Amino acid sequence: MRMSRLFVRTLRDDPADAEVPSHKLLVRAGYVRRVAPGIYSWLPLGLRVLAKVEAIVREEMEAIGAQEVRFPALLPREPYEASNRWTEYGPNLFRLQDRRGTDLLLGPTHEEMFTLLVKDLYSSYKDLPLSLYQIQTKYRDEARPRAGILRGREFIMKDSYSFDIDDAGLERSYQAHRAAYVRIFDRLGFEYAVVHADSGAMGGSASEEFLVVADTGEDTFVRSPGGYAANVEAVTTVVPAPQPYDDAPAAHAEVTPDTPTIETLVDHLNERFPRDDRAWTAADTLKNVLVMLRYPDGASEPLAIGIPGDREVDMKRLESQVAPADIEPFGDADFERYPDLVKGYIGPGVLGAEGATGIRYLVDPRVVEGTRWVTGANMPGSHVIDLVAGRDFTADGTIEAAEVKAGDPAPDGSGPLELARGIEMGHVFQLGRKYAEALGLKVLDENGKLVTVAMGSYGFGVSRAVAAVIENSYDDKGIVWPAAIAPFDVHLVVAGKDPAQFEAAADLVARLEAAGVEVLYDDRPKVSPGVKFKDAELIGIPTIVVVGKGLADGVVEVKDRATGDRRDVPLADLVATLA
Amino acid sequence: MRMSRLFVRTLRDDPADAEVPSHKLLVRAGYVRRVAPGIYSWLPLGLRVLAKVEAIVREEMEAIGAQEVRFPALLPREPYEASNRWTEYGPNLFRLQDRRGTDLLLGPTHEEMFTLLVKDLYSSYKDLPLSLYQIQTKYRDEARPRAGILRGREFIMKDSYSFDIDDAGLERSYQAHRAAYVRIFDRLGFEYAVVHADSGAMGGSASEEFLVVADTGEDTFVRSPGGYAANVEAVTTVVPAPQPYDDAPAAHAEVTPDTPTIETLVDHLNERFPRDDRAWTAADTLKNVLVMLRYPDGASEPLAIGIPGDREVDMKRLESQVAPADIEPFGDADFERYPDLVKGYIGPGVLGAEGATGIRYLVDPRVVEGTRWVTGANMPGSHVIDLVAGRDFTADGTIEAAEVKAGDPAPDGSGPLELARGIEMGHVFQLGRKYAEALGLKVLDENGKLVTVAMGSYGFGVSRAVAAVIENSYDDKGIVWPAAIAPFDVHLVVAGKDPAQFEAAADLVARLEAAGVEVLYDDRPKVSPGVKFKDAELIGIPTIVVVGKGLADGVVEVKDRATGDRRDVPLADLVATLA
Repeated sequence: MRMSRLFVRTLRDDPADAEVPSHKLLVRAGYVRRVAPGIYSWLPLGLRVLAKVEAIVREEMEAIGAQEVRFPALLPREPYEASNRWTEYGPNLFRLQDRRGTDLLLGPTHEEMFTLLVKDLYSSYKDLPLSLYQIQTKYRDEARPRAGILRGREFIMKDSYSFDIDDAGLERSYQAHRAAYVRIFDRLGFEYAVVHADSGAMGGSASEEFLVVADTGEDTFVRSPGGYAANVEAVTTVVPAPQPYDDAPAAHAEVTPDTPTIETLVDHLNERFPRDDRAWTAADTLKNVLVMLRYPDGASEPLAIGIPGDREVDMKRLESQVAPADIEPFGDADFERYPDLVKGYIGPGVLGAEGATGIRYLVDPRVVEGTRWVTGANMPGSHVIDLVAGRDFTADGTIEAAEVKAGDPAPDGSGPLELARGIEMGHVFQLGRKYAEALGLKVLDENGKLVTVAMGSYGFGVSRAVAAVIENSYDDKGIVWPAAIAPFDVHLVVAGKDPAQFEAAADLVARLEAAGVEVLYDDRPKVSPGVKFKDAELIGIPTIVVVGKGLADGVVEVKDRATGDRRDVPLADLVATLA
Repeated sequence: MRMSRLFVRTLRDDPADAEVPSHKLLVRAGYVRRVAPGIYSWLPLGLRVLAKVEAIVREEMEAIGAQEVRFPALLPREPYEASNRWTEYGPNLFRLQDRRGTDLLLGPTHEEMFTLLVKDLYSSYKDLPLSLYQIQTKYRDEARPRAGILRGREFIMKDSYSFDIDDAGLERSYQAHRAAYVRIFDRLGFEYAVVHADSGAMGGSASEEFLVVADTGEDTFVRSPGGYAANVEAVTTVVPAPQPYDDAPAAHAEVTPDTPTIETLVDHLNERFPRDDRAWTAADTLKNVLVMLRYPDGASEPLAIGIPGDREVDMKRLESQVAPADIEPFGDADFERYPDLVKGYIGPGVLGAEGATGIRYLVDPRVVEGTRWVTGANMPGSHVIDLVAGRDFTADGTIEAAEVKAGDPAPDGSGPLELARGIEMGHVFQLGRKYAEALGLKVLDENGKLVTVAMGSYGFGVSRAVAAVIENSYDDKGIVWPAAIAPFDVHLVVAGKDPAQFEAAADLVARLEAAGVEVLYDDRPKVSPGVKFKDAELIGIPTIVVVGKGLADGVVEVKDRATGDRRDVPLADLVATLA
């Protein structure tokens, strides 16, 4: 392809709405173009990369025997009604009506449709195991579409689904998919982590996420020296043993003036109620946080969460615990409805099934029997000290809503956790029988008995991958594509204006292409070498060949985009070197 | 691929909603599956055919230098507002709103978006000519989705667009696309006609349709022995020369009781007012038909159409003439509003700018000056005879709304027309400057002057092609695929239960696949040969290889699906024969 004909314009400036490197670079280098918030067009360069990602995904899916199908994006409401996702998806779902007023949606994922298709065609254990996949356009009406194609409202996914007669089969299908994902992530050159995942709104059990490690990622995950890795939503707290409290003093309320924050409270405790053995810290306090849960059907419910004062509530962890409910602030109007709640001094006494408010009260798993806490006394300006869990109060249950901190122990005992950020690129998931049950997918087993099929679901963000690769591979000059998905193999630049250089270049291009090398040939006669080099580095093709002054000596320069290494290669050797 | 693992179920019965052969066969043979009216899923067999059609289209587009891009399907309202198509598309457009209440649409075609993209990137005549294309999913909310994937509501199209500095360039781009289409249609094995087309709602000038000739087609077209071919909407009437009328008698109203139809009127005329030279025929009568035009903005307008009584109004021709208005019946309430209209006896006298009703009056082009007509006398039970056009009445203009009949002369003098039916598969179209003007696509010409770009638009129905091929190629047993797009090259069937047959078959499959032949291997051990053969004929792969009793003699049977011809081929020669 000649650069003079390629439909592209490189830009010097970052687009105004771009925050992350991949977004800036994909737009500046002419790979994609914004049409509306979260909605992009693919230009020729971008589409070439996308096609290569798709080809790799397709190869690895075929290698595990998955068969490709394609569902429509425009879908009827009924199956999503049966699974309850028509409601659960809330405003993330694009809904519309056709000319007859029939409800339709733009598919955000296709579990329901695949379940129904298999139900439609298959009826026997002999038909299983079965794995189907599609590479298809999906839609989610994100609240904050951002980061370009990293989080779009229209995007391309590979989603596959496995169907097995039993759990052992599901486990095999799951492992086959997991292995295929490892190969895909390796081939795409990702730096990635496979983490235990929260299953979120998908229902089901075993679930792992493939995260691309990147500071710009929206997901926080943890990993330990011993190899544990998990999405923060999936981290379970190491629960301390119950503590003896026979010698614990009785709980006593104390006036604690001017202690609006945990920090001032701790200072006050250390000054007025010093302990012999050790100073008070925030970890000795129990703060009770109130939120309103809003369910998809519109109903709402207050929730009180008790967590140690040295931790904040992690909204993502809380969200995954209360899904499909949304979390709304507990506002002044809500406080007015519960006069027993003394803002800033709320204690367990008024919470829970037996408290005056009756508000459901869930505590951090660290609040085990016998632990002693300083907490609100349900009176303005007062706290209660030596309140013992299990003796003085009992919560309605526990909840994993407190933030995970670096240094927290891994739940499997593999050492202290470190925190990192990642981009969710893949998700493998043992759905189990949730959708099969909701939609009635049963087959006859060997004994002629109807059994519900065990399903797995496996997603991979095809268009997102194009951006995520860049988050792992760019520099201040532009994109640095891995060879496997670069739009071209070689970017050949004529550095001067000498017609002999253009002739030699055209000849090299022809010979390289004949050898199967994909070449982007910058043949623009009136563009300066400086601009051409800048464009080449911005576009990020792995190998840059410069036809310049060396031509007189029979050599061209071959530059490695990633390392910047240059070397002269005799014209005669170029094809053999690069092919 | 082994049939025992292929995700497919063939059906014995036609789907209840299927009318045309391709719809019945694609569902019965397991290529597609209905999800909702006009919305289908592609099963593995279908997707393979679709991919082959796409590959052919892509090759031919690349061969003329068109570059592939991909637009989203979910699009903002504004560009379609600028072109007026947000309104003009009426209920055919799927509209929706996002969570912020922003209007969006599902793209039915992308002229606006391509125009804006080129405007965004390019600014000079040096950037032109440019041809861009995409293979992408489109949406139209058809009033009557029918015929399976022949007319779906979600479908795949290749749409391309050319951009040129002037009309000569547009003509070149148009001819290049037209030639590419001829190659595509030839490669897909279509029986097709390239017809002059009406430009419809697209605006613009030169326009041709590629119709697949099929009795099941929704489009009627005409062709002449001399090579003229046109969509009925595009046929222009051969206008007779004006006729002398100096010796014509004055028009005279006559009582014509019991003449509710043209036929009874003609009988009455021949009985009561016989002519010397020849009998009265329906062609001597002028009937005036009233309709209401409803415009996209909601406004309406009555229209009177005068056509010879031997022809009906062709609604499709009329629609294309009055677009973007819709046609509604002229009802009783409308008649009440115009008391001068005497139902069944309407004559030109009350019509047109100077008539009592003021209703716009357009006549068939055959109503030239001097022609004499029998028509309504605007009195119940009376007609007027010898009403001379140009002497006794003048219309507001002419309209091509009368049906085209077999035997009508071709407008280019190439002989009498015959009528045929076709499926619209492609449309090449010189848009001119309609969209470039509406959206401000201008570039600097050689003299530094801003000029509006000349555009062409070229559509091809990729998913529709899969069905249309079948309309050209099937028999009572099933589909007969052309080799170029068959899902597999060879369907290999084991006809017995002898393990030696299965072993030999597996070996043949391995050798054929090693030679690049795509094989569907029916390895099902418990299925009878009869069912296997029926499935093979239904699925329609061009070559069927049967491993049966001949194996003992070292031969297999090779059957041509299209002709039914069979021959025995020695095992050793099979790969060479088929590769």
